[in-house]
Amino acid sequence: MKERELIEAISNKAVHADNRLLVYGIGDDCAVTRKDDNTVLLYTMDTLIESVHFEPAWHPAVMLGRKSVSVNVSDIAAMGGTPQFVLFSLALPPGFDDDWALQLCDGVTEGCTHYGCTLIGGDTVASPAGITMSLTVVGEMAAELVLYRHGARAGDIIYVSGPLGRAAAGLELLKRGFRDRDLFAGFYRAHLDPRARVDLGQKLAATGVVNSMMDLSDGLATDLAHICKESCLGAVIYQKQLPFDPALREAAALLDHGCTAKNPVDQEMLRWMIGGGEDYELLFTAPPRATKKLQEVMAISGELLYPVGKMIIGSGVMLVPTDLQKYGKEVPVEFLGFDHFSH
Amino acid sequence: MKERELIEAISNKAVHADNRLLVYGIGDDCAVTRKDDNTVLLYTMDTLIESVHFEPAWHPAVMLGRKSVSVNVSDIAAMGGTPQFVLFSLALPPGFDDDWALQLCDGVTEGCTHYGCTLIGGDTVASPAGITMSLTVVGEMAAELVLYRHGARAGDIIYVSGPLGRAAAGLELLKRGFRDRDLFAGFYRAHLDPRARVDLGQKLAATGVVNSMMDLSDGLATDLAHICKESCLGAVIYQKQLPFDPALREAAALLDHGCTAKNPVDQEMLRWMIGGGEDYELLFTAPPRATKKLQEVMAISGELLYPVGKMIIGSGVMLVPTDLQKYGKEVPVEFLGFDHFSH
Repeated sequence: MKERELIEAISNKAVHADNRLLVYGIGDDCAVTRKDDNTVLLYTMDTLIESVHFEPAWHPAVMLGRKSVSVNVSDIAAMGGTPQFVLFSLALPPGFDDDWALQLCDGVTEGCTHYGCTLIGGDTVASPAGITMSLTVVGEMAAELVLYRHGARAGDIIYVSGPLGRAAAGLELLKRGFRDRDLFAGFYRAHLDPRARVDLGQKLAATGVVNSMMDLSDGLATDLAHICKESCLGAVIYQKQLPFDPALREAAALLDHGCTAKNPVDQEMLRWMIGGGEDYELLFTAPPRATKKLQEVMAISGELLYPVGKMIIGSGVMLVPTDLQKYGKEVPVEFLGFDHFSH
Repeated sequence: MKERELIEAISNKAVHADNRLLVYGIGDDCAVTRKDDNTVLLYTMDTLIESVHFEPAWHPAVMLGRKSVSVNVSDIAAMGGTPQFVLFSLALPPGFDDDWALQLCDGVTEGCTHYGCTLIGGDTVASPAGITMSLTVVGEMAAELVLYRHGARAGDIIYVSGPLGRAAAGLELLKRGFRDRDLFAGFYRAHLDPRARVDLGQKLAATGVVNSMMDLSDGLATDLAHICKESCLGAVIYQKQLPFDPALREAAALLDHGCTAKNPVDQEMLRWMIGGGEDYELLFTAPPRATKKLQEVMAISGELLYPVGKMIIGSGVMLVPTDLQKYGKEVPVEFLGFDHFSH
């Protein structure tokens, strides 16, 4: 059974008939419950496992601790909320390194401080082998401002809040042993120590013009497919509009030259940008008439928002490739092998 | 570094200066935050790991799923609260058994239903080896009724809500291969499929006469030591007052006969009752004048409450053994090797 099937099985089993619950957490970044007439609480939980989600050998403990907070806080940011409380559960194997564990905890508390959260509880347990961290983050926001995945409308422009594929390139560089190139410092950081877009998420929610939002954790192709599914729409993205750091090409060339000849540079870059996870940028949709308000957000926040496509009647995510001759006009992204779950 | 030292290191690092937070979760069963003027939210998180907390070989998946909910809900019950929401994170190794995983999820949702909770989110991730479950449970209750560990007063009578050592005996019987004796069915169930004392916890909190409360998860010696520490007091417990199921003696005799000659039957029983964890009964203290109100609770709930000792000026937990000649009048329980952390 694939992860997706199991998630569906679990969510089908879950009791939905609860008027205290506004949104079920498995269909969105957070579960949303009512706090009072005007306010909702947001809940998210993520588990990070050694060898699957991180490699202690080249992931500094402090950064890993901060990252464990950031990836959870990103789910709160993805709905426009304010993170408040963190619960942290840590499983450590026999003979774990004391200093490493303490630095990890330093990172967790630093992450909490950075986002204005308080670490309120959790537990530590023994693990037979390998380190596992589970975090729950609780957030809060005005009920009327919450942005869901299901709100996209046909004709909406699709935006991302930053360059794509940085974390995926960073991970691949680190894996392949290219760990100290100044040119790729931003890529290493994107993988090792990402930052959740809390302020931007709040500002976007406050505009009132954004129709749907989530964070980019599994890659544009997979994440946008969630917005499509939840909104009962399709999406088209334009390869030439996808924002990327120029060093991404250097990274692709280095890795292509270094080891595999199978992936031409452009293809590798596209794979990172569409299929690569963990960028933790915001992905959102807004109607064309929202452009002015979004420009105001850019002016106030100093952040760039990149239009990359549009929502359409239909289903699934289509890519309009830059190289039209090779691929034709539009290609369903799953045919390109960029679907996270197909890996 | 021991688990306790790491927990202390983490809690020392945590940011305490947050007026939204009433009680930090590591010093109590739950973290407590304010919901509104009259209501608080309770948060607890527990992780269960294969080979450490459960053995899939003889732990039926449905029971394990229910147990994972019960052990978390027990922390809510321990403060007198009402569980509301559950987040469930599941890590599964390659080639996991589909049916087993689905039954586990059935158990989780059954547990939620049993306690009137809604499963609102979580995640599933890949594990390199072994199954890990992390759950967060959110509860709610009237702010003025919350029972903490720190409220005990000198002179308080110490109560437990049921027979002790059942889960520990069950675990040892199962481990040693005695898995189908009718006489021990209650012990197996106590370990495999415990029930949190939610109703009783609420009734005790509502009396207004209970000074401190927690649940018995690590064994009477360790758990009572927490109440002592948090209340800046000591405690005396009387061996002859400790409630136990008569079959406990049979189990001790069977295991003593079966394998080890080192532990005489009485000693093994005492070890289960004082040192054995996971009974998930309530442990609480109340002044002698509260007896009448507690009798009313017993009458209404049909539950028995057992006085087992008293809180005293001092520190640590002392046992008054039944066999005075062997041990003298009072023995600090840590000298008996019943401290959870010394194992």
